[in-house]
Amino acid sequence: MRTRKKKWAAGELADNPMIIRDTADYKRQMRGNFANDNPVHLELGCGKGRFITEMSLAHPNVNFIAIERDPTILAAAARLAREKGAASIAFIVADVNDIQELINPGDVSRMYINFCDPWHRRKKQAKRRLTYDSYLIMYEKLLIPELYFKTDNRILFESSIECLSRRGWLMKNISLDLHNSLFEGNIMTEYEEKFKEHGPIYRLEACPPIGAVNPAAST
Amino acid sequence: MRTRKKKWAAGELADNPMIIRDTADYKRQMRGNFANDNPVHLELGCGKGRFITEMSLAHPNVNFIAIERDPTILAAAARLAREKGAASIAFIVADVNDIQELINPGDVSRMYINFCDPWHRRKKQAKRRLTYDSYLIMYEKLLIPELYFKTDNRILFESSIECLSRRGWLMKNISLDLHNSLFEGNIMTEYEEKFKEHGPIYRLEACPPIGAVNPAAST
Repeated sequence: MRTRKKKWAAGELADNPMIIRDTADYKRQMRGNFANDNPVHLELGCGKGRFITEMSLAHPNVNFIAIERDPTILAAAARLAREKGAASIAFIVADVNDIQELINPGDVSRMYINFCDPWHRRKKQAKRRLTYDSYLIMYEKLLIPELYFKTDNRILFESSIECLSRRGWLMKNISLDLHNSLFEGNIMTEYEEKFKEHGPIYRLEACPPIGAVNPAAST
Repeated sequence: MRTRKKKWAAGELADNPMIIRDTADYKRQMRGNFANDNPVHLELGCGKGRFITEMSLAHPNVNFIAIERDPTILAAAARLAREKGAASIAFIVADVNDIQELINPGDVSRMYINFCDPWHRRKKQAKRRLTYDSYLIMYEKLLIPELYFKTDNRILFESSIECLSRRGWLMKNISLDLHNSLFEGNIMTEYEEKFKEHGPIYRLEACPPIGAVNPAAST
């Protein structure tokens, strides 16, 4: 089963034109990768791709980049997008720690982090959370003006607010129970569909401090 | 019943030495009101006084001020404190909007807001929430360096985080489910005891931006 799965994934990884292989070249000519001037939205850790595929279908005027560390899972995401006819997504096998190798400062106008690993079992692990200060600094350097964040993990959400506050990010449209709120147009991930009955889904939007996004404006 | 209650309250209001009547004089000689140099903590809306009484008993090296708009409820709080032997509390019948008439900038080193009216039914009411921007500005002017905030109202807590973020306050020790968290030493209000089983209790601590607390330090 595992072998068959891998074999299938290898085929998808080799043939799906939405999967980017030469990331250095991709980064070099970022705007040229798209046949338009539409904004670019990035999802960190796209999993099996339901969110990014549905986002792409719902927002044809946005270019999407989806990264995922696990090649087999990325292959599943790219297959889903291909089957559903979601054309404007670039899938990249990559670790979040390497996004500076994939995009240039200013390339991305919105970033999605959905149900990332909460690293909540030990205090020492807090640094690995994708909303920890060191990651926020990386996003600031990449001049990403908006972060949309969802999780079902209370400890992760609590610490995310604290980190964002510490770095001076502006938080808005906070929801402490997304599925029982007035929020409209939520697109679920596979994980969210599965776990939404187990407890509240938390969501927020955040913008880095102005000086961080536009260094020219800071003193 | 109502008359009897009021009669009793009138007696308490007249005789309990912890109740401050001449607030102008109290404000004028704030430090002289206490026979010590201990810090002063303020509770906005003390209700029937369980929280402030237990805090006072648990922290004998802190001076407390408790304000409450309703004289009958304040009388009940002051009676509870008197009966429990909590001596270091000043009770004042006052509206939150008038706290600048009661304390001087720098007098208070911590403020508690517990289960205030959430004003959550209509968007227009948001301005009445005690964590709304205009109130935060008032607390900043009074140079209050710490706010400890609890509520069971989700909409109030969501909007509080947004307001605090907007004003640049630093949030820490956030709990999205206080009674199922590792937080130790929580002292409950009467309301909290009654409603803690109905849903999560939210809690946070927040500090105003440094320039707001110490204007000399800002540029």
